[in-house]
Amino acid sequence: MEKIEKLSVKEFMDKLYSSMPAPGGGSAAALGACIGAALAGMVFNLTTGKKFYNEYDDSVKEKINKSLLRAGELKDEFLELMDEDINAFNKVMAAFKLPKESEEEKDIRSRSIQEAYKGAMEVPLKMARKAIEIFDLLEISAKYGNPNAISDAGVGALFALSALESAVLNVRINLAAIKDRNVVDTASRECEGLLELAKERKERIIELVEGKL
Amino acid sequence: MEKIEKLSVKEFMDKLYSSMPAPGGGSAAALGACIGAALAGMVFNLTTGKKFYNEYDDSVKEKINKSLLRAGELKDEFLELMDEDINAFNKVMAAFKLPKESEEEKDIRSRSIQEAYKGAMEVPLKMARKAIEIFDLLEISAKYGNPNAISDAGVGALFALSALESAVLNVRINLAAIKDRNVVDTASRECEGLLELAKERKERIIELVEGKL
Repeated sequence: MEKIEKLSVKEFMDKLYSSMPAPGGGSAAALGACIGAALAGMVFNLTTGKKFYNEYDDSVKEKINKSLLRAGELKDEFLELMDEDINAFNKVMAAFKLPKESEEEKDIRSRSIQEAYKGAMEVPLKMARKAIEIFDLLEISAKYGNPNAISDAGVGALFALSALESAVLNVRINLAAIKDRNVVDTASRECEGLLELAKERKERIIELVEGKL
Repeated sequence: MEKIEKLSVKEFMDKLYSSMPAPGGGSAAALGACIGAALAGMVFNLTTGKKFYNEYDDSVKEKINKSLLRAGELKDEFLELMDEDINAFNKVMAAFKLPKESEEEKDIRSRSIQEAYKGAMEVPLKMARKAIEIFDLLEISAKYGNPNAISDAGVGALFALSALESAVLNVRINLAAIKDRNVVDTASRECEGLLELAKERKERIIELVEGKL
């Protein structure tokens, strides 16, 4: 299947709006995280080489340059995650279509559905973990980045948080179908921790931004 | 200039990441709002014609069908706003490039800059007002929409809020350059009101979503 990132922005939104089950909220979450990573990168790109940048210590310059590169990688990784999310969702759909005549078929189908739901839960969980990294970059961008682009760092933090919260909603809707209590409890706990951390990190970045607005 | 919506998702994100000043946080905010509107539409599209839909009263069906159409319009309007934001930003850049040799030129330039900043502030303010409408649709989708897509309504609400908050950040960074206290005070007050309303609306939708997860 063609990669989602090749769709035009208009085509992506039209497909999201449509009754096609994918792309859905999972891909939207990845797109939001991608916005956060891209905006961090934008602030760094508007920073390197500028007069105030040249006056920074080498350690700060290195931090900025590493963050610029990492933001670019994360941007691409979140674009990939849009496809991963759709593929995982399609596996759930496929499992439901397995035959269910004999007892053996019913058993295979039911185990396949469970496995597929676990796969569909793991993609947004990975997304949520990765979204935390955006806050690391955005905090550096809000501290040392071009002050003319300070609102972009803020927008990045707002999107990183909603992307992470959205990813968690997508973990939870899949968990609702998973019977293995161990899997459910472990993933739920991890999500709680990620949500709490993300809210703190976003607040810290918004404070930095508001201080410079 | 070619419309932003024609860029591929990958091209859009690469440009956002780059040192090109536009697209920036303003277009990102519009894109986030577009995600919210598109997801509301998706939930309605997964609702109409379904068995549970056919059992609704005509008044509910009408509400759903009107909301489905409005979500599609809003999706397109937010895509348009990405270009409007870039155009308004370019006018600020152009005003700064006006000649400033004579006193008369300085005066014209300074008034042009002020006018351009007002224009650049008005686009995200319009965006924020329009984002409130997404909550109206999402609330209907969370109440009456396909329960299998309930997490999509939740993701929509998270993005509608971060889009509105981002739009307000973009209003505020432009207000910081505007000297007319009247304009600044009026816009600031309106933003405060919109933020408060949006947070309430988002909470209400998330409660509905969590109740059905």
